[in-house]
Amino acid sequence: MGDVSDEVLGHVHRLYGAQSHRIDGGRAQEWAATFTPDGEFWSPSYPEPAVGTAALVAFAERFAAADEQAGTRTRHVITNLDVASADGAGLVVRGYLQIVVTEAGGASRLARMTTFIDDLVRLDGRWRIRRRVVRRDDEPR
Amino acid sequence: MGDVSDEVLGHVHRLYGAQSHRIDGGRAQEWAATFTPDGEFWSPSYPEPAVGTAALVAFAERFAAADEQAGTRTRHVITNLDVASADGAGLVVRGYLQIVVTEAGGASRLARMTTFIDDLVRLDGRWRIRRRVVRRDDEPR
Amino acid sequence: MGDVSDEVLGHVHRLYGAQSHRIDGGRAQEWAATFTPDGEFWSPSYPEPAVGTAALVAFAERFAAADEQAGTRTRHVITNLDVASADGAGLVVRGYLQIVVTEAGGASRLARMTTFIDDLVRLDGRWRIRRRVVRRDDEPR
Repeated sequence: MGDVSDEVLGHVHRLYGAQSHRIDGGRAQEWAATFTPDGEFWSPSYPEPAVGTAALVAFAERFAAADEQAGTRTRHVITNLDVASADGAGLVVRGYLQIVVTEAGGASRLARMTTFIDDLVRLDGRWRIRRRVVRRDDEPR
Repeated sequence: MGDVSDEVLGHVHRLYGAQSHRIDGGRAQEWAATFTPDGEFWSPSYPEPAVGTAALVAFAERFAAADEQAGTRTRHVITNLDVASADGAGLVVRGYLQIVVTEAGGASRLARMTTFIDDLVRLDGRWRIRRRVVRRDDEPR
Repeated sequence: MGDVSDEVLGHVHRLYGAQSHRIDGGRAQEWAATFTPDGEFWSPSYPEPAVGTAALVAFAERFAAADEQAGTRTRHVITNLDVASADGAGLVVRGYLQIVVTEAGGASRLARMTTFIDDLVRLDGRWRIRRRVVRRDDEPR
């Protein structure tokens, strides 16, 4: 794995800067569009992965509905982006992802500390996530 | 709204990288200078907006005095910067803003989770905030 | 102190994007390599500074061992990077550093809010940390 160019780093910063606002703001289609059409989302917080645009949209819609029903706002706080070129034409991006939950009229709390490893590919001139794997820090080692 | 150039993205990262250190470090004038001379700061945590350099300086000075009096340190933790070009010559920048408060000799806590939407304009070659609107996640939907 | 070029800003973002993953992931040698061979790490959380590669490696190894022994995962969450050119050929980088600790099967918590000031120099074409000084927000003023 090697360093990436300034141009690629800029693309990645744009992608991750925008992504959380989409799912946290209820824009399920736009969030799903940060993945490739066959994109995969794997997380131990959910029983099975979401694979493909339709499943990713449904995942984001369920996320928003759960927030609405619970009377909470959930934010995906992304930091510490580590970007490397992978073998072939792809990228590997690692980051920290804090899940922050706030109750209406109540307190905000760090609900969960997680990390992710994403495989990215370039599609129609834009970098998109081919596969995201989330790990929870509370998982036994 | 559209993508911004690498150059503009760099300018925005510099501005937001520096801004919180200014207000959290008691440099009220320098914080106010991240806004235009007629800049506006709207937040539901305060009874009325601060408008214009003098009011913004006074706001930052009150913020520092309150921290001093309470024996706390307050940090404005900014993440998830989403930068888009607006109609005309401006930018719209969205971000997450965590308010982290620490008591002298005591614990640190996430006091408040908020989001902001900023309108930026270029003035004398530098991007500055024309209008910031903060929203609290604990506000009822 | 003055503004830095886009190229330098990119280098700094790469360095800080990668650094925490190294110490938090148990890669002590790679973490120590983000410092110069005579690099210094000063923190009030530890009785004395770590100076030089061997001491920095040992520091990172002790950090990982302590986490292992306590059954916790500790993350260094870095935000609000403020990059300035210093006198001479160096850089001064300031940032916020949240220490987030998670127990296996338990909750995640913000254990400590800190800030850092780093002096960087360019060595063999790469920016490295010559001296890091961490301050804790719970220190009396």
